[in-house]
Amino acid sequence: MVENFGRRLQERIRATGPLCVGVDPSAQLLDAWGRPDSVEGVEFMALSILEAATGAAAAIKPQVAYFERFGSAGYRVLERLITEARDADVMVIADVKRGDIGATNDAYAAAWLEESSPLCCDALTVSPYTGVGALAPFFSRCVQGRGVFVLAATSNDEGRALQRARTDADEALEDLVLRSVAELNEAHDALGPFGVVLGATRERPRFDLAALHGPYLVPGVGAQGGTPEQVGRLFERCREGTVLVNVARNIAIAGPERPALRDAVARWRDNLTIFL
Amino acid sequence: MVENFGRRLQERIRATGPLCVGVDPSAQLLDAWGRPDSVEGVEFMALSILEAATGAAAAIKPQVAYFERFGSAGYRVLERLITEARDADVMVIADVKRGDIGATNDAYAAAWLEESSPLCCDALTVSPYTGVGALAPFFSRCVQGRGVFVLAATSNDEGRALQRARTDADEALEDLVLRSVAELNEAHDALGPFGVVLGATRERPRFDLAALHGPYLVPGVGAQGGTPEQVGRLFERCREGTVLVNVARNIAIAGPERPALRDAVARWRDNLTIFL
Repeated sequence: MVENFGRRLQERIRATGPLCVGVDPSAQLLDAWGRPDSVEGVEFMALSILEAATGAAAAIKPQVAYFERFGSAGYRVLERLITEARDADVMVIADVKRGDIGATNDAYAAAWLEESSPLCCDALTVSPYTGVGALAPFFSRCVQGRGVFVLAATSNDEGRALQRARTDADEALEDLVLRSVAELNEAHDALGPFGVVLGATRERPRFDLAALHGPYLVPGVGAQGGTPEQVGRLFERCREGTVLVNVARNIAIAGPERPALRDAVARWRDNLTIFL
Repeated sequence: MVENFGRRLQERIRATGPLCVGVDPSAQLLDAWGRPDSVEGVEFMALSILEAATGAAAAIKPQVAYFERFGSAGYRVLERLITEARDADVMVIADVKRGDIGATNDAYAAAWLEESSPLCCDALTVSPYTGVGALAPFFSRCVQGRGVFVLAATSNDEGRALQRARTDADEALEDLVLRSVAELNEAHDALGPFGVVLGATRERPRFDLAALHGPYLVPGVGAQGGTPEQVGRLFERCREGTVLVNVARNIAIAGPERPALRDAVARWRDNLTIFL
């Protein structure tokens, strides 16, 4: 195994394209599938989407909120999804947006990145409101192929004013996050394990996106209004295999039938590959 | 039951003092207790602290990261802690710092504030990096006595530069959070259900703290260097019963023996009561 998440993900994207399939077993999608909004419904949808993504997408991204709705029983389903994804050789990015002070972040990092944890994934998303420096325990566990994506600019409009607020050094927060993560990646040649979340629907930040030397996770394509063309333009100068685009609802809406779901995955992958 | 979290908490603080006992079953504290760093160790520590807090503190605040380290088994322990706290009539504030885009926040709100969820608590902490507007699903579930605490200024130094960044309207983010939450509380007479997290170690924000008309959750006292005097000064103009101060490590360090632990709870409560 390549011992660096950035390069592992790059290899995977080169092999299977830039699509990450979101696993968002919401009440609405379960209803659209004609399934109950229950832990069994969540399990059925999650494993169906994993099956459709296997061999056809670079990764899956479970949105952990939809599992957490069912407490420990929902987490058991998440553990099963993670285990089965590992067996199927599909990378898993836990969308959890954790972020606290240092000591607590160390416990979160243990939960999501330590081999011994039943929730161990390839990477997780983290939120920087407590300061990028407070995220150090996540960064220090990005070894043995594991990685992290720090929120810079999210796909929703409500985040804009806050994420573009300026520090005393007159730097927008989204740029502060990008620059800080880029500095961490400098210790790695070519491509580091530290990534950033940047919404497809956002304007180009001031920071030169090609200078991150790490992977991007891009939400906001499909149901949230972003298009593959937009993503292609936003990241046009970035290295091949460093942009991973999440599509959730617009794939799941194909319904539970295996051929339709696999077809939706292939269609989105092909759409994205044209522009990335 | 009073149908407003702010007033429920105020009544509780008037009856039992402003202390919230943090439940942080970390590897380090379990070691200090001579207990294994396992799900059994976590359960023993969590229930011991609940017992010590019962009748002597206004609330407990489980730091969910320490439970999540053990995946679904850790969440089962958390569910038991929540159930037993409810039976013991101790309020529970889930320290989870959740924060995502709207649809996802709705799922998180269902997990932590819906009566039918096994994780249902009295309140939870949320993080505003995706924008205060994105937190609306949490606010709309603050009914039937449930509440929320939005991070404004955290207790750690690394958060300062980011939380004091200024928006286009030249408002610091910590002030933006305080003002936004205060505006939500305006719909409630006297005291609303929407709270804010403000670290004991932080300087006074520009926003007039007495104008929140909601509760404060104050971390950073004890192990992180904040003192009861500091908290008293910071919130001196706030209404009685609106400031809840969390102490975790400095109580747990008393060890697992019941009298020592209850004594530590009583000592911290009395220390805080002098200044609040």
